[in-house]
Amino acid sequence: MASPKLNVAIAGLGRMGARHALHFHQLTPRAELIAVSSPDPKEIAWAARNLEGVRAYLDYDQMLREEKDLQAVVVASATVAHAEQAIKAIDLGLHVLCEKPLSTSPEVSQTVVTAYRHSIKKHPAQKVICGFSRRFDASYRDAYSKVKSGLIGRPSVFRSQTCDKLDPSGFFVQYAQFSGGIFVDCSIHDIDLALWFFGEDSIVKSVSAVGITAVSPELRQYNDRDNAVGIVEFYGGKIAQLFCSRMMAAGQEDTTEVTGTEGKLAINTQPQSNLVNIYDSTGIRREIPPHYYGRFRDAFITEANEFTACCLDNTEVPFRLEGAVTAVKVGAALQESLITGKKIEFDEIGRRLPENQPPKAKL
Amino acid sequence: MASPKLNVAIAGLGRMGARHALHFHQLTPRAELIAVSSPDPKEIAWAARNLEGVRAYLDYDQMLREEKDLQAVVVASATVAHAEQAIKAIDLGLHVLCEKPLSTSPEVSQTVVTAYRHSIKKHPAQKVICGFSRRFDASYRDAYSKVKSGLIGRPSVFRSQTCDKLDPSGFFVQYAQFSGGIFVDCSIHDIDLALWFFGEDSIVKSVSAVGITAVSPELRQYNDRDNAVGIVEFYGGKIAQLFCSRMMAAGQEDTTEVTGTEGKLAINTQPQSNLVNIYDSTGIRREIPPHYYGRFRDAFITEANEFTACCLDNTEVPFRLEGAVTAVKVGAALQESLITGKKIEFDEIGRRLPENQPPKAKL
Amino acid sequence: MASPKLNVAIAGLGRMGARHALHFHQLTPRAELIAVSSPDPKEIAWAARNLEGVRAYLDYDQMLREEKDLQAVVVASATVAHAEQAIKAIDLGLHVLCEKPLSTSPEVSQTVVTAYRHSIKKHPAQKVICGFSRRFDASYRDAYSKVKSGLIGRPSVFRSQTCDKLDPSGFFVQYAQFSGGIFVDCSIHDIDLALWFFGEDSIVKSVSAVGITAVSPELRQYNDRDNAVGIVEFYGGKIAQLFCSRMMAAGQEDTTEVTGTEGKLAINTQPQSNLVNIYDSTGIRREIPPHYYGRFRDAFITEANEFTACCLDNTEVPFRLEGAVTAVKVGAALQESLITGKKIEFDEIGRRLPENQPPKAKL
Amino acid sequence: MASPKLNVAIAGLGRMGARHALHFHQLTPRAELIAVSSPDPKEIAWAARNLEGVRAYLDYDQMLREEKDLQAVVVASATVAHAEQAIKAIDLGLHVLCEKPLSTSPEVSQTVVTAYRHSIKKHPAQKVICGFSRRFDASYRDAYSKVKSGLIGRPSVFRSQTCDKLDPSGFFVQYAQFSGGIFVDCSIHDIDLALWFFGEDSIVKSVSAVGITAVSPELRQYNDRDNAVGIVEFYGGKIAQLFCSRMMAAGQEDTTEVTGTEGKLAINTQPQSNLVNIYDSTGIRREIPPHYYGRFRDAFITEANEFTACCLDNTEVPFRLEGAVTAVKVGAALQESLITGKKIEFDEIGRRLPENQPPKAKL
Repeated sequence: MASPKLNVAIAGLGRMGARHALHFHQLTPRAELIAVSSPDPKEIAWAARNLEGVRAYLDYDQMLREEKDLQAVVVASATVAHAEQAIKAIDLGLHVLCEKPLSTSPEVSQTVVTAYRHSIKKHPAQKVICGFSRRFDASYRDAYSKVKSGLIGRPSVFRSQTCDKLDPSGFFVQYAQFSGGIFVDCSIHDIDLALWFFGEDSIVKSVSAVGITAVSPELRQYNDRDNAVGIVEFYGGKIAQLFCSRMMAAGQEDTTEVTGTEGKLAINTQPQSNLVNIYDSTGIRREIPPHYYGRFRDAFITEANEFTACCLDNTEVPFRLEGAVTAVKVGAALQESLITGKKIEFDEIGRRLPENQPPKAKL
Repeated sequence: MASPKLNVAIAGLGRMGARHALHFHQLTPRAELIAVSSPDPKEIAWAARNLEGVRAYLDYDQMLREEKDLQAVVVASATVAHAEQAIKAIDLGLHVLCEKPLSTSPEVSQTVVTAYRHSIKKHPAQKVICGFSRRFDASYRDAYSKVKSGLIGRPSVFRSQTCDKLDPSGFFVQYAQFSGGIFVDCSIHDIDLALWFFGEDSIVKSVSAVGITAVSPELRQYNDRDNAVGIVEFYGGKIAQLFCSRMMAAGQEDTTEVTGTEGKLAINTQPQSNLVNIYDSTGIRREIPPHYYGRFRDAFITEANEFTACCLDNTEVPFRLEGAVTAVKVGAALQESLITGKKIEFDEIGRRLPENQPPKAKL
Repeated sequence: MASPKLNVAIAGLGRMGARHALHFHQLTPRAELIAVSSPDPKEIAWAARNLEGVRAYLDYDQMLREEKDLQAVVVASATVAHAEQAIKAIDLGLHVLCEKPLSTSPEVSQTVVTAYRHSIKKHPAQKVICGFSRRFDASYRDAYSKVKSGLIGRPSVFRSQTCDKLDPSGFFVQYAQFSGGIFVDCSIHDIDLALWFFGEDSIVKSVSAVGITAVSPELRQYNDRDNAVGIVEFYGGKIAQLFCSRMMAAGQEDTTEVTGTEGKLAINTQPQSNLVNIYDSTGIRREIPPHYYGRFRDAFITEANEFTACCLDNTEVPFRLEGAVTAVKVGAALQESLITGKKIEFDEIGRRLPENQPPKAKL
Repeated sequence: MASPKLNVAIAGLGRMGARHALHFHQLTPRAELIAVSSPDPKEIAWAARNLEGVRAYLDYDQMLREEKDLQAVVVASATVAHAEQAIKAIDLGLHVLCEKPLSTSPEVSQTVVTAYRHSIKKHPAQKVICGFSRRFDASYRDAYSKVKSGLIGRPSVFRSQTCDKLDPSGFFVQYAQFSGGIFVDCSIHDIDLALWFFGEDSIVKSVSAVGITAVSPELRQYNDRDNAVGIVEFYGGKIAQLFCSRMMAAGQEDTTEVTGTEGKLAINTQPQSNLVNIYDSTGIRREIPPHYYGRFRDAFITEANEFTACCLDNTEVPFRLEGAVTAVKVGAALQESLITGKKIEFDEIGRRLPENQPPKAKL
């Protein structure tokens, strides 16, 4: 008798949704992709061509109603729909893998956690995670296990960047209306990594950020920037330094360094597409991935397989959903600081401090 | 209606056979692993635990007789059995993926080709390939496509090495009785790559080799060495420089460089396990894969998927079986040169020249 | 007839002074080191052993009085003495190469510039520069010329770090009393580089910084930190991101990246002592320089030779002295922000803005 | 009283001679360049412009006669003149630094050693060395000291290449008439390194080589090739694998790897001009030195200073002159093997074995 498989549906078949669909359809042996939904008829047509045997719905709610054997939903729709779709699935007791961010709003993000906390009382084996793909990346995991082993002492300074190749189509300008801004859209990954490496219970003390529009001044109408740097200060002597950009020439450059009291780990500080070096009259060169998917494809596949396994086996999720709210909260604060030019401070239980209060002695 | 899947059996469940079994069972969506065989009861027990729903046989012939729906066999048994098992499957009209080398003997290797040539007259869609895994590696493929595009001009000097991490268990010494020697066991990959990059129709003009036993003098009883270097000269102005070793300290170092008249490509000249760099008091360090599987796992999975696709879709095989015989022929000649200390020469249609004939003018 | 040589004296024979002395004595063909001064008898004794034919003085003023043929002074004494000694030499019409920083105080630094402006009216060929050694480094110069050539478009985001190997002797804690703080002592180089790559006339809009004491909490008594990150925002859409540290495990890590609208340049992102890679059971490793001198020795020698040449030939100095004041001003503001936790803002002509003024609209 | 300086003359002011002249004139504090000679009036004119205060001679013998205070001669003339000029200086009791190779002929090379052995009886402090510049390179020295320390166990397999950037002027074709061939001209350095790392007393057992003319078929008229690979086998279980080329696209690629029983050292396997990485639409790139001088300039300067020091201080030379004869002998044998296609064998005291003798049992 064959092992049971996890019956999965995908909500959304855009760029990332289509990839999730293929990963669960072809590269996740223990999952059975049974349904997908998208409001876009072109995406439904794509599904008909590429997802043999998978039912496709124009309406997410209808899919939830009709797919009686459904066990898990991957929410990969537009960010504005993440929270609502996730909550509907959660309320039905389904497992959920929700793409990042849960929402561009910390408050809305929190509603997903609240729904899960409520539902899990009835469905104690229910799993809900946010799709922080880097948590599943082999290099980040190796670095994390080395940190845990004490190799670098106490992690103290964290530097991370999410830098996209310049997309001359201007897609990201239009997208800026809905993205929550460059810190919520891009740096959310780096913020999540900082929380992971510093400890999920790390408390943010302050954030500050500045940014520019080097190539796309039209981003300013949406309160966004194309390059930004930020600092996140944590209680307990830990600092994160962030950089996000939309204008890399060579390709995707997602780089992280974790400096500890006794050593340092660097992840992807020498980006590369593969193991080839090209020697020509201009020197020695390696190509680098043009997009995040070129860098993180294996991580997404691991994510699909591990999400499936923890649902089927009722094992612990790799990281808690609450962190996804913290990440949005920090990202949104950085974005606010980027626009207002103000440093934003928090007390030791996470409450935002009023501005202009007398500076505390910090010696 | 679901797409048909390719029904596959694996012969042999040793180190590599077990990996093939898992790849076809879990990571090859269009294949259905239906059976495995191994004369070793422990391996059969492993299959029972790890290959759910797959029938396991102690006897290869019995498997062939009883599995009426079988369409393809992966021969991953001990090298001595490769040719015989491959031919039995070929004679039944089955598709075959045979691990390298077809045999340690060029003559026996040729019998596999002969069997295939005979069989294909009756089964024109039959596919038989030799498992040169590097042909499926993303980096080698990228390099090959760059060579084909003319990026480096005419490929002229090829350097490649297959260097294993020192295995203190001494396994490889025992294995040397059957391996055909270090050039047939290790450098066969490099020879195949040379034929690929220089063109499958390249004709070998001479081979010469020398070797040492730096760590395992007991290899000498089997006419083998633990480190060897060789030169393969081709007609038409092309040279391959080879190095094979059993004593690397850091891990597997399989490195290739292709120098052309207008540029060079280097593959894996900076080996690494992943994208992590470790900074500690000894400097900056990256780890490297301990075994070939750490380097080539993805290539093996691609191999499984592409072999499956070309069987199902009756598309062309990625490379012809005849090259596998040439590779063994060159490897065996290098091994002979290694032991005798003699350079071995061939004429332009591949016939071995007698020794000591007057040197030809080479200007 | 031999070409005239530049008669040079060195003030200070501490760590850096002794190196300057040897560079001018042995490795600067057009210079003649004629005198050195140090208040420390041990350093005078060192000079007697190592600087053959060079007169040594315990008193700087006496050296200035007695060395009638002196043409140039290199001020390499303790930072507190830099400005005073430099001004004395300037007032005598001597050429001066003053080690960085001119002073830890922007106001005192300015007095050196003022003295030079005054003196140059009488001595129009007089040269005074601040010893920003990285300006003489071959890699930084190559990067700068590539930026100037337009290779990366408009430089927009600058990231730079000066990170020292942990010195377990605690020397730097004692030194913190006089150093001006980690931003003035270490990041001054990065600030100078930012001004160089962005343009000397770049106007700082704001600075903000945070820091920690990860390994040396006793630094807090001197208002200093052992790790700090900062952001310097410039008018015109340019940002610098800084990191300085006293606790690197592997060695000196002085790294810079300049991101432009069409490309990026990275300097020393893969630090190394030399061209050797070590393969052992821990992986592949390269060693890195333990101190800044290991990284910048050649730059210091170039500095000595080029300073000498511009004095002898009355050619233009490689960069103007005024920048050294700006660098101290920015460093001191970062240090203040580090301690107060406040962002510091400036108007477009460099005047500091009062705190707590209503944020300006920045869209 | 000033320390005495070593009075030096340079013979030859071609490419390398001019560099030696500048090194001794400007960058060797303990040497005084007093004279140069060249038969070429243009080179004499160059000396007048660039070597202030140095006497220039069209005739080498005249220089030796007239320069009564001369203490040392650097022979950097055309290779055909090396031995004769060196011997004339040796016979006068002068110190000599002779550029590599001593001669393209092993026999003529030996005459230099013989002259030195004779002269040193009268002038026991006389120093004569061959200019193997890599012996003075910081990276090779670091690697050598690591080997000596036992870091990699017993060095067993040596791989080294000297690969020039393609010179489209065809200069090297004309030069091939006099160069002794690519193995004597280029690989001589790698052979010397092999002798250094394996031990100067290593005895060659066999050499074999093959080569091609990939870009310059006209080399065949001079019995030369533009790409060649060779194997040098030593008694005692050591092998060297060599590659030399005239057609690199990116620049000079002089790379060495030393594999021992417990580790490996790689020197310059990732060539680079400096510490800059360039990110553009083609990927990430570093430039590499166009010529050997770009790679080894510092080594040449160290050579000048250390040669000077050992002459002045009567300390031991860094390596014995006899090795320079062995290197030519091995290079010439490789070149012969390259042309004849024959393997050349030697007995354990270095005598060449007749061809076609029955192969010795090598188990």
